Amino acid sequence: MAVASFQLDPRLAADTHPVVRWGLSDVLLMDDARFPWVVLVPRIAGVTEWFDLSEVQQATLLNETLVLGKAMQRVFSAEKMNTAALGNIVSQLHVHVVARYATDEAWPAPVWGVGTAKLYDTVARGHIIDRLSRELPGL
Amino acid sequence: MAVASFQLDPRLAADTHPVVRWGLSDVLLMDDARFPWVVLVPRIAGVTEWFDLSEVQQATLLNETLVLGKAMQRVFSAEKMNTAALGNIVSQLHVHVVARYATDEAWPAPVWGVGTAKLYDTVARGHIIDRLSRELPGL
Repeated sequence: MAVASFQLDPRLAADTHPVVRWGLSDVLLMDDARFPWVVLVPRIAGVTEWFDLSEVQQATLLNETLVLGKAMQRVFSAEKMNTAALGNIVSQLHVHVVARYATDEAWPAPVWGVGTAKLYDTVARGHIIDRLSRELPGL
Repeated sequence: MAVASFQLDPRLAADTHPVVRWGLSDVLLMDDARFPWVVLVPRIAGVTEWFDLSEVQQATLLNETLVLGKAMQRVFSAEKMNTAALGNIVSQLHVHVVARYATDEAWPAPVWGVGTAKLYDTVARGHIIDRLSRELPGL
């Protein structure tokens, strides 16, 4: 495995804004105001599949994923949470956690590749990042 | 939580064929010959989100998901594994594990909602179920 130090994939960096740093993963807000959509990126270089992490990292990533999903369900009154590790476009391991509603633009389809991202304006983005930072526990 | 006993959702039952029964989940082959696509369904009644499982069940489902993903990557020489818990159409908790290739019909999009399922013929279905049954460890 890579000895190289971790660097966030440039495409993920371009599409997201940092919310908080957890023990294993960076918590990043996807810049798409159509969906409350957060991405977890474990700061481990060279990993593309969840099962390529060490056992401790695998369990930590699950815990971070579930804590995030449960908090987002509550904060955004989501009707359903969608959780996925895909990586067909950006292979660096990352987990999507998306709050979904029967009234949202993509429902019942998944959000990936649907229409065009609607970027947050600065105020709305600051607001949602503040809200998430306050509501997410430290991990 | 429901005292009701677990029953596989009728839509999942209609779209899949059983491969093997693991400790927590049923392992089901999605009847779509376009993608090697397996679904794990924990036999727990009334659960729609991963974080609604008990902690032991959460960890068991992760282990089953990762063992399945790693085995499918090897068996099908997948270029990327896609793993997701969505549930927008069927709310009963289930985890998709899909082997993906840069040459497959949906790439790089996710598989859900893309085109129309191409059902296996009986021989091909028997072959892939045999192969999975042989290659998947007991869990």
